[in-house]
Amino acid sequence: MAKKVKKKAARPEAGASTKKRKSRRGKGEAGQRIEELALSVVEQARRQTDPAFEIPVRALSNVSFNPRSRFIEMGESKQRRNFFNYGQAKRFMQSLLVGSKCKELIAQGKSASIRQIYYLCKHTIKGTKEKTFDAQDESDPVIEDLEVALDTLREELHVYADSKGAMIGRVTFTDSGDTIDATRLGSGGYAIPSIVEPEVIQFKKCAARFVLHVEKGTVWRRFVEDRFWARHNCILTHGGGQPPRGVRRLLYRLHHELRLPVFVLMDNDPWGYYIYSVIKQGSINLAFESGRMAVPDARFVGVSSFDYERCGLTDDVKLDLDANDIKRAKQILNYPWFKGKRPWEKEIKRMLHNGFKMEVEAMMSKHLTFLTEEYLPAKLKDKKQWLD
Amino acid sequence: MAKKVKKKAARPEAGASTKKRKSRRGKGEAGQRIEELALSVVEQARRQTDPAFEIPVRALSNVSFNPRSRFIEMGESKQRRNFFNYGQAKRFMQSLLVGSKCKELIAQGKSASIRQIYYLCKHTIKGTKEKTFDAQDESDPVIEDLEVALDTLREELHVYADSKGAMIGRVTFTDSGDTIDATRLGSGGYAIPSIVEPEVIQFKKCAARFVLHVEKGTVWRRFVEDRFWARHNCILTHGGGQPPRGVRRLLYRLHHELRLPVFVLMDNDPWGYYIYSVIKQGSINLAFESGRMAVPDARFVGVSSFDYERCGLTDDVKLDLDANDIKRAKQILNYPWFKGKRPWEKEIKRMLHNGFKMEVEAMMSKHLTFLTEEYLPAKLKDKKQWLD
Repeated sequence: MAKKVKKKAARPEAGASTKKRKSRRGKGEAGQRIEELALSVVEQARRQTDPAFEIPVRALSNVSFNPRSRFIEMGESKQRRNFFNYGQAKRFMQSLLVGSKCKELIAQGKSASIRQIYYLCKHTIKGTKEKTFDAQDESDPVIEDLEVALDTLREELHVYADSKGAMIGRVTFTDSGDTIDATRLGSGGYAIPSIVEPEVIQFKKCAARFVLHVEKGTVWRRFVEDRFWARHNCILTHGGGQPPRGVRRLLYRLHHELRLPVFVLMDNDPWGYYIYSVIKQGSINLAFESGRMAVPDARFVGVSSFDYERCGLTDDVKLDLDANDIKRAKQILNYPWFKGKRPWEKEIKRMLHNGFKMEVEAMMSKHLTFLTEEYLPAKLKDKKQWLD
Repeated sequence: MAKKVKKKAARPEAGASTKKRKSRRGKGEAGQRIEELALSVVEQARRQTDPAFEIPVRALSNVSFNPRSRFIEMGESKQRRNFFNYGQAKRFMQSLLVGSKCKELIAQGKSASIRQIYYLCKHTIKGTKEKTFDAQDESDPVIEDLEVALDTLREELHVYADSKGAMIGRVTFTDSGDTIDATRLGSGGYAIPSIVEPEVIQFKKCAARFVLHVEKGTVWRRFVEDRFWARHNCILTHGGGQPPRGVRRLLYRLHHELRLPVFVLMDNDPWGYYIYSVIKQGSINLAFESGRMAVPDARFVGVSSFDYERCGLTDDVKLDLDANDIKRAKQILNYPWFKGKRPWEKEIKRMLHNGFKMEVEAMMSKHLTFLTEEYLPAKLKDKKQWLD
């Protein structure tokens, strides 16, 4: 059953199809790009010009939904960061400092959290009372600056975030040289790390037909216990709510490299719609990473506002929409990636019309395994019920 | 190196040493106790008396620190719950309803989250407009009632909580029949599930000399990446901040069944002291479970208020104590399990005197691997630096 993953099976990165996000990935390349940046600064100094470099603008004004790539992208606006500029000198130096620390990490084969980067870089500048950084909210944006300036992922700079989420199912992979068969992980599963780049994780065998991503760990456990992954030959993931970068990147890789469809199961509330849209189109804050994280082909399989009637649920499962839910639902209705999609407009309007939201657990009000043995199998069989 | 875990290696449960917390554990026993409770109610009804049962009081007044067992315990106070009592009838019926649902889960070999229990039990009572439960904050306390009334853990009733935390290191165990070698889990590790009872997880081989439990996932990753577990032959766990029940129960089992010392590494702040004390003595809220979760022999190895000087740190790592930190530190100083312990009093007073707190990551200000290659190995070698 299990197919060996061919060495060259990976599709080109989705990001590679758009000119400006062309990615030059692979071990050491991020380090090389840091070096190029540093050399260009040195060169400018030697030529006695004001050292500077360019950073794409990370602001709402430079972010838009690209209907062709079907994800949220950064535009072409760039800002210069100059050394001889009173307002920019500190940030200029901070960027080079963080860059040099990342270069060191890459050379050592080590990684560090954004908090650790902060401590690694913080010191008093010799001969002054000035600190390189006063707080982490100064170093975090510098890391993002570097990501966009160098067109790398933070993870390629060997910087990790907190991890959440787990995986189980029909895939065998290596993580740091250890071979892990995700069908043999009991009830706990594989804790998805923050860095899941090919230099860490490589897929080896895959007998899965699709990935089912659920919102919460407690729902994921329901699917694991009911052995949904074994019966339906799939991979089960969750992201502990809003999925962290590692989980999104892993979904991206499972989809693009193993060609697995990704199905998303969320609570029937505006937050559920939003999480789905982040997995699918990316987020405004991390627009510069959509090309390597977004899964535009991800499908929403529930919970839908129409399921209340469709499944014959009772008012036991109704949760009142509050003012904020209604506001968020209306905002989401106006997102360019939902707007004009008739099925989505119907879905969101139906929630507003219902006047209530529902959790995935609502399905348990029928019986314990209704969700995993009836509801979802029926959803997966009936394409008309998928939302795209 | 690895020792096979002997079938009968397990020490008697710590709880078994105190008369009133005598535990009758094992597969099916929780189910049997639910049945006994139900039969006694039926029997009372047949005798035409007012059906009732007793529940130990879960209130601060009935909780105390037992210096002999060295953990927080519940006292002997009990309350009756009667059926023919206007104020108690609903809760009485809710208890039996949840009990019957747990019995069903146990019989099916299934489990459910507290949220799922809520949905499984919620319905309109026939012939009325009355709901069995209006919200989950009614069903959660009923689950706790059952735990104490039946002297079981929630997990033995097949009820799970959200899971957090991960494990890696020199132990091999089975989870739901799958054999998992925790030295072969890459960078991600084993996601510790909510239910880690012997009916799910059994230890098979162990070459670890101790367990190191760290507060956060990002610090845990530092230890994993630096292969601390391999160099020092240990098991590494984290609980994503305040460890959830599953992580505490696993630490308990690693300590009691495999006789592994447990070392705890937390941030140097009142929250760190508190988390340590929950692992060691249990918490007031879950006092009824200390006997099967607390690890009174757990040792605190850092970060200590004295480390600032001892390690020659700079003011880069100082984080101001705010009013709340100071208040909490003073409260903790007065906890009976810290009070009168000279080293702890010195430790907490030193933090107040310092006027600042520090994170574990502060050690990164020396260099990236100072924490894992110098600080902690030195701490573990020098017993005088352990806090008990």
